[in-house]
Amino acid sequence: MRQFIVLGHEAATDPEFTLKDLPGSAGRLDVLCRCINAAFFLSHDLRRDVRLYLVLQDSYTVRLEGEELQYLNPDEWSTASLLKKALQKKEVNDASEELRSTPGIYIAERGFADVLESVDGTVIQLHEEGDPASQVSAPDDPVFVLSDHQDFTEAESELLAARHAQRASMGPKRLHANHAIVVAHNFLDTNGYQRY
Amino acid sequence: MRQFIVLGHEAATDPEFTLKDLPGSAGRLDVLCRCINAAFFLSHDLRRDVRLYLVLQDSYTVRLEGEELQYLNPDEWSTASLLKKALQKKEVNDASEELRSTPGIYIAERGFADVLESVDGTVIQLHEEGDPASQVSAPDDPVFVLSDHQDFTEAESELLAARHAQRASMGPKRLHANHAIVVAHNFLDTNGYQRY
Repeated sequence: MRQFIVLGHEAATDPEFTLKDLPGSAGRLDVLCRCINAAFFLSHDLRRDVRLYLVLQDSYTVRLEGEELQYLNPDEWSTASLLKKALQKKEVNDASEELRSTPGIYIAERGFADVLESVDGTVIQLHEEGDPASQVSAPDDPVFVLSDHQDFTEAESELLAARHAQRASMGPKRLHANHAIVVAHNFLDTNGYQRY
Repeated sequence: MRQFIVLGHEAATDPEFTLKDLPGSAGRLDVLCRCINAAFFLSHDLRRDVRLYLVLQDSYTVRLEGEELQYLNPDEWSTASLLKKALQKKEVNDASEELRSTPGIYIAERGFADVLESVDGTVIQLHEEGDPASQVSAPDDPVFVLSDHQDFTEAESELLAARHAQRASMGPKRLHANHAIVVAHNFLDTNGYQRY
């Protein structure tokens, strides 16, 4: 299984945002929608062996399970609608235990430290200053951690260091998080560029 | 320079579409917006050495010039607004000659055959049945041709064959057009995976 954790530093935790202004009042929720697109979509198919965590302001986490996902479309508007539904769910229910919003989408009151502690696998921080991907051996159970449009905070970097996360760069250019996810998938699809 | 031609088989040519329904009444204009995002965006930067042609229903073509682009943001809503502006421009002006809409965005009444004939460079058709990218030498002046959510038509394939386009696949999985653009950029950024 491939897992991704994306840190949304300003992402809305209140469902009252407008779908027309994802980059503004929704706190760059557009970035997270594009990460969902990159993590799950293949042409006329979904990647079922993927789990994605979206950490919103280090307070709530949306978990998306490829195996169970339904109603997901590639566009930002409808993807943001699903996130809005998840946020509405936690407004009316106690999210200290994880809640199911729509099939394959869950929300809980938990931050990055809690998510990182709970995941099994080899943690790889995607970072422009990391080792080139071609020099990193592709683990069977990667957990890629990415930041949104902002840099990792010091606290996040410390948590990753404590987990002995390797830093990998997906190329010599600084990429948007969703583009880094696409390249990471391709890197694994092609067995680290070697065999394909 | 890197050039991309994306064929939008159903994409709106009438500006009266609603931004709320890009996948529906706008004819999968969401696909083309994501291709724009993939072609131009780097983290906190734009790829200036890129030209992108969006061929709409083989009748109108929007040309985007990285060197000149302004007002482009990564989200689909605002990107679609720029395309709407370009379509409005051709409603009130004669588009038999190319018209400038906003900085770096042009529109003209021209189809794929005309665009393909006008471009200089080595044409590469991105296609899931093509040769693996790692077996394709990266040209200095690639012109990647991609189809939207639909397959290439027979007429399009014939035009590409007449241009002696090589077929390349960006991996063993069938990718969305925007994901294929991301991987193609990464392929070139990393010199065909060899040196990075």
